[in-house]
Parts: sequence; structure tokens; C-alpha cells
Amino acid sequence: MSDWLPSWRETPTRQAIVDFVLRTTQAGAQDFIAPADRIAVFDNDGTLWSEQPLYFQFLFALDRVRALAAAHPEWKTTTPFKWVIENDMKSLVAAGGKGLMPIIAATHAGVTTEAFADIVRDWLATARHPATHRRYDAMVFKPMQELMAYLRANGYGTWIVSGGGQEFLRAWVETTYGIPPQQVIGSYAGLAYVPGAQPAILKTEQPELVDDHAGKPVGIQRFLGRRPVMAFGNSDGDFEMLEWTTTGAGPRLGALLHHTDAAREFAYDRASVVGRLDRGLDEAGQRGWVLIDMARDWERVYPDAT
Amino acid sequence: MSDWLPSWRETPTRQAIVDFVLRTTQAGAQDFIAPADRIAVFDNDGTLWSEQPLYFQFLFALDRVRALAAAHPEWKTTTPFKWVIENDMKSLVAAGGKGLMPIIAATHAGVTTEAFADIVRDWLATARHPATHRRYDAMVFKPMQELMAYLRANGYGTWIVSGGGQEFLRAWVETTYGIPPQQVIGSYAGLAYVPGAQPAILKTEQPELVDDHAGKPVGIQRFLGRRPVMAFGNSDGDFEMLEWTTTGAGPRLGALLHHTDAAREFAYDRASVVGRLDRGLDEAGQRGWVLIDMARDWERVYPDAT
Repeated sequence: MSDWLPSWRETPTRQAIVDFVLRTTQAGAQDFIAPADRIAVFDNDGTLWSEQPLYFQFLFALDRVRALAAAHPEWKTTTPFKWVIENDMKSLVAAGGKGLMPIIAATHAGVTTEAFADIVRDWLATARHPATHRRYDAMVFKPMQELMAYLRANGYGTWIVSGGGQEFLRAWVETTYGIPPQQVIGSYAGLAYVPGAQPAILKTEQPELVDDHAGKPVGIQRFLGRRPVMAFGNSDGDFEMLEWTTTGAGPRLGALLHHTDAAREFAYDRASVVGRLDRGLDEAGQRGWVLIDMARDWERVYPDAT
Repeated sequence: MSDWLPSWRETPTRQAIVDFVLRTTQAGAQDFIAPADRIAVFDNDGTLWSEQPLYFQFLFALDRVRALAAAHPEWKTTTPFKWVIENDMKSLVAAGGKGLMPIIAATHAGVTTEAFADIVRDWLATARHPATHRRYDAMVFKPMQELMAYLRANGYGTWIVSGGGQEFLRAWVETTYGIPPQQVIGSYAGLAYVPGAQPAILKTEQPELVDDHAGKPVGIQRFLGRRPVMAFGNSDGDFEMLEWTTTGAGPRLGALLHHTDAAREFAYDRASVVGRLDRGLDEAGQRGWVLIDMARDWERVYPDAT
């Protein structure tokens, strides 16, 4: 097993995960799970890649506003766009989700799905994280990449169930995590088919699924139609996904990544606006969920660093 | 190849399908398609099983109204329910889709996804088709079952893209077609997560996707996130799905099943209310779509009959 998980230290956390895989996949084991039911779901922000100081997709949206500002002179005097142009992060954060919807609409809608994927990939190739100065897709967690490959090698399907945008994720997660587009469940707005000799599918502004909290089990049922047997998250937004996964019959594994590593990544939990983990910390013990302690359990964090 | 498709006669139709599979899957072929892109989508009603005299899911809904009528005395005097109880098919058909929405809501919502699947399976085990007196799931098309197995053996993913209800389909298509729930795209209303020690997911009345006409490419993008390379349908409701599939770059195959066989199944096209095929017949030639002529191309229709 050590070949599969070199970035995990030999701690009880790693052992709990490996034990679960062994007892659910070995023929004749009491807890054997048929291959079709081996479904593992993963949150993305804070579980598969970093999410501080702000969700990376939000930083993408801000970069897009700056890139499009020359074509939108009216944004100089219109909130919330003017806050982006003036780099007024305080007002942006204070505006909250609903106040920022115009930014999401202006940067995510009115474009074909193919063009949007190109925009996201171009951004990933050029943008750099404000603190680490790395590419954002270099801030994925190496131990989680290894874990997903290990699970797939044991017949588990690996799915993303993220509050992030479905088409945003699809643009890069196949290359980075080995997860194909049909296994990406995310938040989404509407799609509109444009017929013709060269038909296209346009992204619209109409909100349809917020794939967070109770929206996660809803998204899982909508796309998968099966209850997963393993779920990995890191924040209270993943609580319902872990609850839905671990209250089913038979062997189940729920795990929360606790960000405890200010030296190598970030340290935050109950008091954080982004990726707040509070109820999950309170209830993990009684619910039998594994707490992955980043500082303790991981030998390294990012693929190209210690 | 004859081992895979014994219910198909040796006609140019069969040859066109087999040729497409050979030239897209043989290593080194000019039209080779990578396994990840081998996606084939199938309409269900009229393409994988019969749909006359009315969509089978609608007959299910009528049976459910009759089964629940004793608990709803008010239905005796309320349209559209009273039409069901009085067996007034003329008024039911005249009411059209919107007029029948209360029946769909009363028989498909306010129930957990697990309980609904049990209801559908119980109905399939006991209900009989009014004309053939067969089980409804015995009225699936044997040649299409063979075709899907043949495609899967050649590395193609097989997906259902149906105007029928997603949870209705999932209850039986894995057993009948070998298609797992995560490869079933259908029409759907809302889902609501109910938390707790034994959480559940409830089906609600809120319409979300009508997976027909332009809704089919939308559903494909939403669930698959890839453009298929093969599409099979039988009615104008599948037109946009075939258009979206066959206008992509590289090798593509679109096919429409033409119901020409009054002796073994049903014969209908341009004038039918159910499964109307009109524009598709007009444009199949110029678009290079294959027309499968049931009477000519199929050696047998249903699994247990000629």
C-alpha cells in the first residue's frame, strides 16, 4: 500500500482509510462492497486544493472583471464591479454571496461551454496565487491525488461534489485529478441550446443548483442515483454529504480534512469565513468520521513542494 | 460480429452501424476515437422500448391514480383525476401535457426516491400492456439491447437521454439494459434533502428539466459534459440530440428508428401524437442519418417473441 500513498505518514488516519479499502474490496470479506457500489465523493475547495484567502474560482471571477473592464466603462461607477477595479476587497467580502452575483453572471454567463472552458484553462496557465505565487492548479493536494488513484485502482469510482461551478471544474480536473467531466457534480446555472449548422450550448444566468450543504446530497442523487460509501470534505458545507453517505447501511467512511498547517498551507476552522469547519469538528467523533490532520498526517502537501 | 447482433438482419443499416464501430475502434484507423470519447446516447420511449398507445410512464401514472383513489375521495369530482377514475381517455388526451401535470405531481412527488423506485418496480412486475398483455419491460427491443452490449464491448459508454422521468427509468434500466443510474439522463423535478438520523431524499413537484427537444443536448452537457459521437432516437423530440451529436468534428453517427411494423409492433410516424417523426424523416437523408426500418432491418423485435 505504501506505493500508493507516499505522501501520507504512517498514522492511524492513513490506517483507517487503508483498512476500509481492504475490508470492502477483498473477495469474501464480511464488508465486501460490489464494484458498482464503490463510490467515493470528494469536495474540491479545501479538500482537493487550497481555498485561502478566497475560493480560487472567485479570484478567477475578479481577474475576469479586470480583463473585461476596458469593454465595460460603466463598471467604473457600478457596484460591485467598481470595487474590483478599485481593489476594494473589504467591500467585496462584505457584499456576500448575493451582492456578488452580478460578478458571477458577468464572468460565467453569455458564453458557450466550450469558450468558457478555454477561458478557464488560459487563466490557470497564467494566473498566480497572491501569497504562494504558484499556479492555482499547483496548489492541489498531492496526498488526495494519491488517495483518488489508490481508490480507483481498487475499483472505486471517484466523483467531485463541489460548491464550485460545474463547468469551471470540468475545464481542468480531468488533467489534474483524473476525473472525467461526467463525474463532476458542481453548482450550475442554466444551459441553452442554440440550434443550427454549428450548434452551441450557452451558459445562462438562471441559477439551478447550489451544490453546497443540503444541495450536495441532492446533487449526488441527481447525477449518481446511488448513495456513496465514502465521502471526503473539509467544511460544514460538506456536513450533509457526509451525513447522507455515512448513515446508509453497510460499511461507510466519512472524513474531514482539518487545515492545521500554517507552515505548509493554512490553518483555519471554526472562525474562518472561507471553509468554516465548526459543527463538523463538534460531531465528527460521535459520528465516527475520520479527522485528517494536515500537519500530522501528511508528509507533503503540494506536488512540487514539501 | 454476427454473434453480437443476431436480431439484426444483414442489411445496409446494420452494416453502417458495424462499419462505424470498426473504423472508430481499431487502433491505427483514420477515424479512431479515444475510449474516453466513445459515448453513445439513446432515447428510451420508442427507441429502446415501445411507446404506443401512450408513453408507458403515463400509463403507470394512470394506474397509480387508480391505486390511490380510495385515499383521495375528492378525486371523484376533480379533473383531471375524475377522467382517470371514469376511464375517460378522450378528455385525458385532450388535456395535453400541462393539463395532466396534477396527475404527474400526485403520482411522482412527495415520496422518497427509494420508495418511488419500489413503486415503479412493483408496477412493472404486475401491470400488463393493454394490447399485448405483456409486462411493459418485456416490450423492450431485443436488437437495441444487443446493440448496446455490442457497443460496450467495443469501449463505448451507453447513456439514456429520455423525455421520461429520471427516477422512473433508474428503477429498472440497470437490470433491463445494463445501464447504471449515473448514465440515465431524463426529465426531472426537484429533490429535497431531509436530514436526520435516517436522512432521505424527497421528490418534489418543482419542474427542473424537460429532457426533450432542445432539453436533450442541455441534459447531455449537464450530465456528460462531453459531446456524444453516436445518437439513437425515433421521434422529432430527438432531433436536437442528433443534430448536436452529428455536427461535431470527426466521425459521427446519428440514427432514427422508423416504426414501420404494424404486424410485430406498431406503424406510425408523421401523424402520430405519441412519438411523432416528421422533420426527422424529411432531413435524415441530407444530414446523413441512418434510418432503421423496423420491418426491414430487424429479425425480431421483443426478447421473447419473433
